[in-house]
Amino acid sequence: MKGNFAKCGSVLITGASRGLGLQMVKQLLATPERPQKIIATVRNPAAAEELQKLAKAHPDVHIVTLDISNETSVNAASQAVEAIVGANGLNCLINNAAIGMSSDLDSVTRDVMMKTYESNTVSPLFVTKALLPLLRRAAAEGSGMSIQRAAVVNVSSLLGSVQLNWGEGASFKSYAYRASKSALNMVTRCLAADLEADGILCVALHPGWVRTDMGGPMAPLSPEESISSVLSVIAGLKEEHHGGYVDYTGKNLPW
Amino acid sequence: MKGNFAKCGSVLITGASRGLGLQMVKQLLATPERPQKIIATVRNPAAAEELQKLAKAHPDVHIVTLDISNETSVNAASQAVEAIVGANGLNCLINNAAIGMSSDLDSVTRDVMMKTYESNTVSPLFVTKALLPLLRRAAAEGSGMSIQRAAVVNVSSLLGSVQLNWGEGASFKSYAYRASKSALNMVTRCLAADLEADGILCVALHPGWVRTDMGGPMAPLSPEESISSVLSVIAGLKEEHHGGYVDYTGKNLPW
Ligand SMILES: NC(=O)c1ccc[n+]([C@@H]2O[C@H](COP(=O)([O-])OP(=O)(O)OC[C@H]3O[C@@H](n4cnc5c(N)ncnc54)[C@H](OP(=O)(O)O)[C@@H]3O)[C@@H](O)[C@H]2O)c1
Ligand SMILES: NC(=O)c1ccc[n+]([C@@H]2O[C@H](COP(=O)([O-])OP(=O)(O)OC[C@H]3O[C@@H](n4cnc5c(N)ncnc54)[C@H](OP(=O)(O)O)[C@@H]3O)[C@@H](O)[C@H]2O)c1
Repeated sequence: MKGNFAKCGSVLITGASRGLGLQMVKQLLATPERPQKIIATVRNPAAAEELQKLAKAHPDVHIVTLDISNETSVNAASQAVEAIVGANGLNCLINNAAIGMSSDLDSVTRDVMMKTYESNTVSPLFVTKALLPLLRRAAAEGSGMSIQRAAVVNVSSLLGSVQLNWGEGASFKSYAYRASKSALNMVTRCLAADLEADGILCVALHPGWVRTDMGGPMAPLSPEESISSVLSVIAGLKEEHHGGYVDYTGKNLPW
Repeated sequence: MKGNFAKCGSVLITGASRGLGLQMVKQLLATPERPQKIIATVRNPAAAEELQKLAKAHPDVHIVTLDISNETSVNAASQAVEAIVGANGLNCLINNAAIGMSSDLDSVTRDVMMKTYESNTVSPLFVTKALLPLLRRAAAEGSGMSIQRAAVVNVSSLLGSVQLNWGEGASFKSYAYRASKSALNMVTRCLAADLEADGILCVALHPGWVRTDMGGPMAPLSPEESISSVLSVIAGLKEEHHGGYVDYTGKNLPW
């Protein structure tokens, strides 16, 4: 690890019911240098059995109900988060929840385009806006940029790179998902420009192609492999990453 | 002009009621090497008085009703276009219509994000899909890539460049518009990959900052200046531009 989560008071992860979000919670708990508070948000806590077990065993895991696409839920969650983090604010927001419906030129519909954009682009922006007072609170005292101060990590994808969507890189077809992630990259960059003065680091991160429900069984990386690299990259985030687009190895990607 | 519209059988322009779309119709009519058929689409023909006058004076201007966000309207328009172009198909589709609501971090709403995406990203994709049989028909006989064969020109914006949205380039704030145009760039690139085998050229084009209702009175370019350059770039499109992102001077932009 280039850095670690020690002295990072709180981390919030969206979509922690399964896949990479759940894996982040597990692996954060497995390290001694972990954040004081791990806020695992899920839209349906009753169905998140594995997470519930983790939370029972570890009082530093806080489960909060959050459907990122639902404004009422976002507002309620931000109040719940405030009650958890208090005066220290929120240090690290990881916008991980997303959907990945496939959609090639023949099968793509207006509805799939709109729903995917709502979940993958619009919702991370509005979750961030709702938690901004808490991120600003955390950032207020510190200097420099890092997750020890305050950061927004938007889980993007290589498939959001317009430049790399060419030749071999264009073989995976998904209009809806690709467009939503390139738009998320733009939102990340807008946030980076706007939140720089507050000292809030903003970055877009590609976790690799991973064997989850979304990534499918053919993916080369296990969730463990992806997330150990991802957490190491997040722990090591510095000013130089602000406004950037990095993969799980820390490499910069072209927009 | 690097090329011209002679031997380009038909051009279709969306959003031809005012602004850059109307200006394209005007300036195409002003050149002797013009396409045989200029299909000017507007969502409300009755309100498009200037265009109506042009069409009365020039029988090669065909007005077709098209609200790009409305599926029924898109289907009806594609039938109307088929009746106009017939066996020759459609040579050049210019997806120009768009909306430009301003939205900084404070003022942006979910609704503005969704509506802007629907108009600026989703609708150009579905207008293209609806007209694809006619573009393929036009492309079937030719070789190489050009507007004389078949092309889709998506009017994008410099504000859709994620890379340039930094420092001075980030001073214009609009989450909704910027995200929609970077997603349109991705859609353009997806289309380019998918339509290459058909010989249909696809490109994203920034028309410059222009004094229209959208660009406002402070913009440096008049509609005449922008569109004379834009038409010259479109007329000169070649294989090397396929899948690219160019401005009105023909310069490549970074994604
Ligand atoms: N796996 C890959 O290969 C890969 C590659 C590149 C990028 N990514 C990105 O990595 C992130 C995680 O992907 P994954 O592979 O873990 O996907 P996944 O296995 O499909 O899990 C998606 C998660 O997002 C949650 N979610 C979806 N919509 C939600 C909503 N409206 N509100 C709250 N939660 C919602 C799901 O909750 P429910 O259980 O309630 O449905 C689930 O926890 C995503 O941003 C994805 O785009 C993944
Ligand atoms: N002006 C600039 O500085 C600038 C800079 C970069 C890029 N652009 C791009 O250039 C293109 C043209 O912009 P402009 O400056 O001419 O804008 P404008 O003056 O605001 O005109 C917009 C046009 O789009 C039409 N339109 C909007 N929504 C529509 C829909 N759902 N169905 C059919 N038509 C619709 C409008 O029709 P109604 O009259 O019916 O409303 C109007 O004809 C846009 O793609 C814009 O993003 C402009």
